[in-house]
Amino acid sequence: MPTDIEIAQAASLQKILPLASRRLDIQEDSLSPFGHYKAKLSLEEVQRLSGRKDGHLILVTAISPTPPGEGKTTTTVGLGDGLNHIGKQTMICLREPSLGPCFGMKGGAAGGGHAQVVPMEDINLHFTGDFHAIGLAHNLLAALIDNHIHHGNALRLDVRRITWRRVIDMNDRALRDITVALGGPGNGYPRQDGFDIVVASEVMAIVCLSTSLADLKRRLGNIVVGYTATKQPVTARELKADGAMAALLKDALAPNLVQTLEGNLAFVHGGPFANIAHGCNSLIATQTALKLADYVVTEAGFGADLGAEKFIDIKCRKGGLKPACAVLVATVRALKYHGGADAKKPGSDGPQALADGLANLRRHVENIQRHYGLPVIVSINRFDSDLIEEMAMIERCCTELDVPCVLATHWADGGAGAADLARAVVRACERSAALSGSSASSAPAAALYADAEPLADKIRAVATKIYRAGDVVFTPKALAQLQEWQAGGYGHFPVCIAKTQYSFSADPTLRGAPVGHTLHVRELRLNAGAEFVVAICGDIMTMPGLPKVPSAERIDVDDAGRISGLF
Amino acid sequence: MPTDIEIAQAASLQKILPLASRRLDIQEDSLSPFGHYKAKLSLEEVQRLSGRKDGHLILVTAISPTPPGEGKTTTTVGLGDGLNHIGKQTMICLREPSLGPCFGMKGGAAGGGHAQVVPMEDINLHFTGDFHAIGLAHNLLAALIDNHIHHGNALRLDVRRITWRRVIDMNDRALRDITVALGGPGNGYPRQDGFDIVVASEVMAIVCLSTSLADLKRRLGNIVVGYTATKQPVTARELKADGAMAALLKDALAPNLVQTLEGNLAFVHGGPFANIAHGCNSLIATQTALKLADYVVTEAGFGADLGAEKFIDIKCRKGGLKPACAVLVATVRALKYHGGADAKKPGSDGPQALADGLANLRRHVENIQRHYGLPVIVSINRFDSDLIEEMAMIERCCTELDVPCVLATHWADGGAGAADLARAVVRACERSAALSGSSASSAPAAALYADAEPLADKIRAVATKIYRAGDVVFTPKALAQLQEWQAGGYGHFPVCIAKTQYSFSADPTLRGAPVGHTLHVRELRLNAGAEFVVAICGDIMTMPGLPKVPSAERIDVDDAGRISGLF
Repeated sequence: MPTDIEIAQAASLQKILPLASRRLDIQEDSLSPFGHYKAKLSLEEVQRLSGRKDGHLILVTAISPTPPGEGKTTTTVGLGDGLNHIGKQTMICLREPSLGPCFGMKGGAAGGGHAQVVPMEDINLHFTGDFHAIGLAHNLLAALIDNHIHHGNALRLDVRRITWRRVIDMNDRALRDITVALGGPGNGYPRQDGFDIVVASEVMAIVCLSTSLADLKRRLGNIVVGYTATKQPVTARELKADGAMAALLKDALAPNLVQTLEGNLAFVHGGPFANIAHGCNSLIATQTALKLADYVVTEAGFGADLGAEKFIDIKCRKGGLKPACAVLVATVRALKYHGGADAKKPGSDGPQALADGLANLRRHVENIQRHYGLPVIVSINRFDSDLIEEMAMIERCCTELDVPCVLATHWADGGAGAADLARAVVRACERSAALSGSSASSAPAAALYADAEPLADKIRAVATKIYRAGDVVFTPKALAQLQEWQAGGYGHFPVCIAKTQYSFSADPTLRGAPVGHTLHVRELRLNAGAEFVVAICGDIMTMPGLPKVPSAERIDVDDAGRISGLF
Repeated sequence: MPTDIEIAQAASLQKILPLASRRLDIQEDSLSPFGHYKAKLSLEEVQRLSGRKDGHLILVTAISPTPPGEGKTTTTVGLGDGLNHIGKQTMICLREPSLGPCFGMKGGAAGGGHAQVVPMEDINLHFTGDFHAIGLAHNLLAALIDNHIHHGNALRLDVRRITWRRVIDMNDRALRDITVALGGPGNGYPRQDGFDIVVASEVMAIVCLSTSLADLKRRLGNIVVGYTATKQPVTARELKADGAMAALLKDALAPNLVQTLEGNLAFVHGGPFANIAHGCNSLIATQTALKLADYVVTEAGFGADLGAEKFIDIKCRKGGLKPACAVLVATVRALKYHGGADAKKPGSDGPQALADGLANLRRHVENIQRHYGLPVIVSINRFDSDLIEEMAMIERCCTELDVPCVLATHWADGGAGAADLARAVVRACERSAALSGSSASSAPAAALYADAEPLADKIRAVATKIYRAGDVVFTPKALAQLQEWQAGGYGHFPVCIAKTQYSFSADPTLRGAPVGHTLHVRELRLNAGAEFVVAICGDIMTMPGLPKVPSAERIDVDDAGRISGLF
């Protein structure tokens, strides 16, 4: 069985400029090439397209993630190829992979099997340099903070109250908790600090939610980097950092265009964490794809409780997007895991485990239907080991929920393997469009809460409605912060809850569909530039570590430049 | 008077693929575009060209640097344009600028006035991502070191003896001296650490001295990251880091092609520090340019005591390069500074200051003639304020030295302003070629010392012959290290002396042409991958800081994406 990278390297790619020009009806000059198979669409072209009508937006989400993975990115690519396969002009929008996990455990993140975006090595390594630019803009602000303090601290920043950390695109646990500016007066004022991974940077979230260079610069200026001794916020604008940061990010804001193995077009752009950020590709990529294609398939990070919720309550809210339907990805193996199967005990994954595990799928489907009013299609990534009676159980469950259930084999068969899924999606889109009275509606999706609700109530809404928590407990400090921000003019922000992706609760061991649990809000962070408030529940790692045998040890390049060891 | 960036932005650029294809007679497919005006030449094409005959190599160097600057990069670009202007097919080879200084004091570093390489904003910001790749490869190795220790430390690295620091492409003094891995056992073993700027990374030096991907990987594997408790070196190869590092650097090794304001072609590739590294653009760029052009103009960092010495004793030695002549850049203002003029006291810069300051020029000319056997051409960057009698003094001095002295006005006039300089250079090249009996010799330049001399003697040779030091003093620890490395198989390496660029001595206040000073070797570093031994003399900063008002505050981008505030 060939690996993903072997399949990708065996593919014959088309030059991206003529391909995009022909398929999307745009001038080659509006594209800036990065090698022959990657390009950025110019922001001028993005602007020019803004008057056009939108295509149908399809969100790919999933049941709660499990260790073996469900194949959400693979389904997103496969469905895009499948829609093109049945004659629907379709674009795909994905996140850019982070380098950290690539050298750690995960390997590549550009789909899999015969449903991949290519060139996969480039996409998984430096790609078009967006993450490097984001890391550098972030760290420029950090350097300007310490430099400002060193040279007199006119803004009276309190070194104990600096909230802006540094970032690196690497899994490096040694940088989580550090002290900086040691070594004497020439090196500045010593203080505690730390590095997060680039995808956790607020700059990443800002790039992914900005609609133009002007919007980007405004948001960068609004970043709160810390507080004075009297707890007044100090912003990047006061440090005069916003202009240089925006200059560094000018190209990173333009969406990246690549192709699938079947020569269909995909934007792969931006990649914020799905826990402490909103976990979707850039708004600018999604908005632009909707102008260029009749159908746009995109994905959101983790399961629907995190990814779909943030996609709708943060990204769609900000960008006026209305998805036509949601595809919920599951596998038999993952459902059994939610039903208590122990991966190490083969006997434990019988029919009862599947029956119990379907509770997780049922909960996600109900959430999307009830709270967002979206049609759902369940897509099962088919494995050879799956039994017919197992499929029948899942189908019965879906029939009870009144949602279509489709088997998909794009991993093995490419777009043809997702043709049934594509047809089900087209039916849902057409029904949505008919209901909303236009071929593609521009009203935003139904959100879970209104802008005007207090921040604490927004957190409670997500916890009780989506997570089905019985109670939400804030620490006294967290409550005080919420009140401060509410009074300080940030009360209209949406909330972004950072919790484990493995459970509806904040306890990763509670699989299935737990109810009545208590959500403890441990810590809050104000993202004044990204314009949301992060509520951290449980242990959330913003700087991963490498495993005992990191995949970096396996990655190699031969004398002819051919890379191996990326999965 | 328009600024450099205004001149650069007013220029009408040609698309780099057809331009390069036409001017260099190469296939467009051997170039990988980065936008429309930057490209990388493929390593396959580099390989294919290797059989061709070399053109003439011209080194641009300078008197000892002074605060106002002498215009060495500007002269390199202007001379390249000037040679093309008089009908000689010429390429230029430059270093890539570092982002750190760009946000600090220096502003852009892509030439100036009408002698610039463009697109200057791109070249000064992310360019083709080489420095990002180098920083990331460096930091991957750092992460793998701490990860190895965390997971059992099978190689028995001594946490007190780790020599591999981390890097960032930013002037950030707070990161010079830090402690990492605080916060408990989950974050690793706490230890002292620090960040250098990317240009100071050994990986930068390695990329700039490698001749192929295989050579790159070999050198990366040889990097010594630290020592065991019994002082045995531990290498990147033992950590299995070399493959992944090489994979990250695969594209960074391919030379970047851009154009001058006059549409002539330049490689801008690599940028190692000129103090703790050798300070020249990549060997691969210079070697390839020599295959593609009849004349190649390149520069070396700082003054001739550092830049030219390392260019010949490290880069030419490794790469078998033989320069045909050297151009020594000076200005009246800089010469007066070396004669004791005080920039703040206008009365102090009279004819006596110039007469005294010429000692610096005389010393550099003599060094290049005597020790390297190279013809020298003195090039004076002309300012409006320069007086005719001042020019006459410089000319008299050059006549005594038997070297041509040419006034150049490329800053104001572009290539036409360097036509006289170009003609003088052509005469020197033709004379060199006639002497060596072929149109372009392939024998390496005369070096200052032989590979077989002991490391300590090599340091003494540079100090006494080039710096004219009376004595070299090693600390006992430094002497012991030299003996250790001599015994450990590194004795054949050349040496790379890190000292202030402002004086022939290690004391930056000793201007002019000091003699008989003592060179104190404070610290030694083994660059087993780059294959040289660094001798640090005096205070050398491997992580600069930002000034009180950094240029970052001035840099901006407007809503249409136009960048301002880069000089």
